[in-house]
Amino acid sequence: MEAVTNETPIPVVDLDRLERNLDRMADYASKNQLALRPHTKTHKSPRIAAEQIRRGAVGLTCATLLEAEVMAEASSDLFLAYQPVGEAKLQRLLALPTECGITVALDSDRVADELHRAALQRDRRVGVLVELDLGMHRVGVSGIDAAIRLAAMVARRPPLIYRGITFYPGHIRGPSQHTEAGLHQLREVLGRAVAALDSAGLRPGIVSGGSTPTAWRTHEVSEITEMRPGTYVYNDRTTAEIGACTWDDCALTILATVVSTAVPGQAVIDAGSKALGREPAEGGGAGYGALLDRPEVTVARMSEEHGILDLQRTEWRPEVGEQVRVVPNHACIAVHLHEVVYGIRNDRLETSWPVTARGRRPLREPIEV
Amino acid sequence: MEAVTNETPIPVVDLDRLERNLDRMADYASKNQLALRPHTKTHKSPRIAAEQIRRGAVGLTCATLLEAEVMAEASSDLFLAYQPVGEAKLQRLLALPTECGITVALDSDRVADELHRAALQRDRRVGVLVELDLGMHRVGVSGIDAAIRLAAMVARRPPLIYRGITFYPGHIRGPSQHTEAGLHQLREVLGRAVAALDSAGLRPGIVSGGSTPTAWRTHEVSEITEMRPGTYVYNDRTTAEIGACTWDDCALTILATVVSTAVPGQAVIDAGSKALGREPAEGGGAGYGALLDRPEVTVARMSEEHGILDLQRTEWRPEVGEQVRVVPNHACIAVHLHEVVYGIRNDRLETSWPVTARGRRPLREPIEV
Repeated sequence: MEAVTNETPIPVVDLDRLERNLDRMADYASKNQLALRPHTKTHKSPRIAAEQIRRGAVGLTCATLLEAEVMAEASSDLFLAYQPVGEAKLQRLLALPTECGITVALDSDRVADELHRAALQRDRRVGVLVELDLGMHRVGVSGIDAAIRLAAMVARRPPLIYRGITFYPGHIRGPSQHTEAGLHQLREVLGRAVAALDSAGLRPGIVSGGSTPTAWRTHEVSEITEMRPGTYVYNDRTTAEIGACTWDDCALTILATVVSTAVPGQAVIDAGSKALGREPAEGGGAGYGALLDRPEVTVARMSEEHGILDLQRTEWRPEVGEQVRVVPNHACIAVHLHEVVYGIRNDRLETSWPVTARGRRPLREPIEV
Repeated sequence: MEAVTNETPIPVVDLDRLERNLDRMADYASKNQLALRPHTKTHKSPRIAAEQIRRGAVGLTCATLLEAEVMAEASSDLFLAYQPVGEAKLQRLLALPTECGITVALDSDRVADELHRAALQRDRRVGVLVELDLGMHRVGVSGIDAAIRLAAMVARRPPLIYRGITFYPGHIRGPSQHTEAGLHQLREVLGRAVAALDSAGLRPGIVSGGSTPTAWRTHEVSEITEMRPGTYVYNDRTTAEIGACTWDDCALTILATVVSTAVPGQAVIDAGSKALGREPAEGGGAGYGALLDRPEVTVARMSEEHGILDLQRTEWRPEVGEQVRVVPNHACIAVHLHEVVYGIRNDRLETSWPVTARGRRPLREPIEV
């Protein structure tokens, strides 16, 4: 690729690939009558969110309050897939534009109670999905009885509205036999949970699941009504390695410059852990990223501002000043490290957009100090 | 600790510890007649840099051009410990305020050549330290002959000024016997290099080295004239584990809130890899950070916005909403993930300051698009 800019390291997105990725997921959801509510943590950019909405997404998923504050400008139907704990987060949640419908994930009686009080005070309806732990063991109530209890509690407390259940199948990835076993177990557990809620008069209107790794299998779990993939817009080395996309679907790369070839057998680029993120390659590959045009060349080691390209499996010997494009192991982490993403088409710079929801401070009001 | 703020996750710095850390390193350098040129990559904040200068630092070290642009306001003597490759970086370097003395690290003839041409064009003096690889195998010329050749080339090309040599002993850390062997080897290799440069009429005026892990042993390597520790201002779990500081010297923590206790045996906090960084504990400890007040409780797993506290080695059972302070494994990475650092004294919020040099875009001019 010719140099699109001399300022490196920066994230560049191939716009043709991005649009193809957006279309493909929208088509899959539509064809399978699944509501698509993409997770915005990957891009954190209202511009990409708007493209998702334009292609039929029913709303957006957010993890942080800042993501919700930013994404309220792209959609009026937001799901905070993260329990809002504490007065500050509750106030930010309820201060979202009133025309914006909000739904949150909950796994705690106490937070349900606090949310109820805050919603009552503001006289604002807040949808609730009860979060279930279906094997990832991160958050979520772990027994069906506990789920029924929490759902019943929410259903009795307007202006909270019990809307259904949510889960994150982050544990289902990796080799295909694991995926098969995981999906089998998911079908079973989810089937029992929905049936039990139904018997208790708490039939979930929404059953929300679906990560990028499991996205293309969502239709095989008949209970699921809504999917929330995030990474699919950009994809990354892990997504390709576990087979949930091809290498040619990787839209995001970190453009970097070779800054040293002084040590034999390696080349050093100006993208280290502060530009790529130190994320493992979950598909089993070594290193922290691989070159788009030479996937056999990996970023074997990193310092904060140095990435060490391992040249053992290539005849290629780059010169100082040469540019490379690294497919990071985890797109969501890499994007979070940059302020602006650059869009290229046919290797030419076409546009750029800010990673607006990248920060951690409230969008509208200063933090109390 | 009482809640200093409800907005979590945020980085908080204990100001008494910070000041003690700043004083201690300044005293060590002064007592041992070593020039102290702290690396600003750790804090990226002019306010902390000013405190370092006030305590006698001769100048500052930067890794990125943005750090240099920001730190030019705190010191008029900057060392860019990173070879500036490409026209964009050279122009940014030479556009630093003219009253600011600049010195750069080099390991490439080609970059020396480009730097020379750019400096000539601007008629600006630029100091050069030839970078040696003394065992870390990241950057730096690897043989004494190559070092002499590059130094001689620089010395013949005003307005470049050959000022000496630099290296980064990042490979010397870990168990004390490794440190002893590493220091022994360093003394030997460095002694030979300085003697050979001296014989060639290229006696280095500056011999710049010294990471935080080796900082307190710098005086044992008699050739070193200048040290560039960075992490010592805040310290972190790795620094404590390898014995280069005590746990009570850890000034930086990430304040987080317990957001879920639904899964037995663990508690989930709202600080994940996007707030703590996914850095290994280099001293051998497991996990990605440990609680300041309960170092036996570690962040065992992380998602982007979730940190999983392992409660196996504690009787403590936190409640949802409780705040904790996590000492991250690597302070430089954690700080880079936040816009603002909050200063506390006696557990009360006293001040805050921006992580000004955190971004990747030029400070003054827009990037070309």
